[in-house]
Amino acid sequence: MRKEKLKELTTYLEELKTLQFRPIEGSSFLTSETYECHLKCGRVIVREKLLKGKKEGSAAIIFALTKSGEVLLNIEPRVFTKETVLLGFPSGYIEPFEQPEEGARRELLEEHGYQAGKMILLDSFYQDEGCSSAYNHIFLATSCERVGSQKLDTDEIIHPFLCTYEETLELEELGYFKSANSKLTLERVKQYQKGRL
Amino acid sequence: MRKEKLKELTTYLEELKTLQFRPIEGSSFLTSETYECHLKCGRVIVREKLLKGKKEGSAAIIFALTKSGEVLLNIEPRVFTKETVLLGFPSGYIEPFEQPEEGARRELLEEHGYQAGKMILLDSFYQDEGCSSAYNHIFLATSCERVGSQKLDTDEIIHPFLCTYEETLELEELGYFKSANSKLTLERVKQYQKGRL
Repeated sequence: MRKEKLKELTTYLEELKTLQFRPIEGSSFLTSETYECHLKCGRVIVREKLLKGKKEGSAAIIFALTKSGEVLLNIEPRVFTKETVLLGFPSGYIEPFEQPEEGARRELLEEHGYQAGKMILLDSFYQDEGCSSAYNHIFLATSCERVGSQKLDTDEIIHPFLCTYEETLELEELGYFKSANSKLTLERVKQYQKGRL
Repeated sequence: MRKEKLKELTTYLEELKTLQFRPIEGSSFLTSETYECHLKCGRVIVREKLLKGKKEGSAAIIFALTKSGEVLLNIEPRVFTKETVLLGFPSGYIEPFEQPEEGARRELLEEHGYQAGKMILLDSFYQDEGCSSAYNHIFLATSCERVGSQKLDTDEIIHPFLCTYEETLELEELGYFKSANSKLTLERVKQYQKGRL
């Protein structure tokens, strides 16, 4: 791993740390709906469904390789984790009118300003099966090319971080990827690269 | 894969399907808290935190091998998935006063009536890093022995399903495991068995 890259990563991870949390009133993003569920076996159970911005919350996660062989990574405030900031992959919610691949392409463009060549679906999975319909998709994006600049929502913060494929695997070994989404993405990419999928 | 086992699985998966959803008022399990987060770089962002039963919602997932070499699996209503019922591993929320291993042992006892020998922590990860503190733990439980019967909460339904290690991997190949928790658990167990971790 290049020393200056690791230093760059550490600086970004430090800068985006949350120093203070102030509770405020109101909730607009996370809501829930409660249902009485009538099962085929005759039993009736009550379950609550999580919605994000009134939507299911299905996301696309993108392992994006540029034409020059670099991987596009995100450093983002993840304020409720112990670290308050995490390294991860470009990702975002798929809009109800979008196909997963469309959403993945849009997110890559918004978060990094990159356009992908091929998009290969590696796996799909339920994010939190007990209380959500969210069904996430892992894409491998190849031959990504810069076509513009980052375009984020007002409240969104993402430090782009680029390093080689080998360095990405080194960062995994070092424990920098800490979420289910990131860990599963890495497994599927490695399996794909080994020709196993 | 033994034919009668696959038939048993199919029957359970069918029985626990949800036929009808009736929306009802009120929410008691999923709630959220909103925070103004003051970052080190000076920016202030607003984020909402998901709570489950007023708690963080960290869970333990257990790949449990019995003394006779079988794997303890769960068939559970997962009403908001497309299938409305999923095959998965014993798992449950860790109580605030518990260590992850304690929670894992308790869940295995409650859901299957089995006591584990050794408990090996294979990995830990954030379940949904954008809006939650939930930090899940994957355990491999060895030499599990039946010491009692299933003890579930009133509204909980779990069909225990036992099959061999090889059959579990076959069910993975066949696409029966569909959640991030289950998929990551399988990867870590296979890596452990290959002496890679």
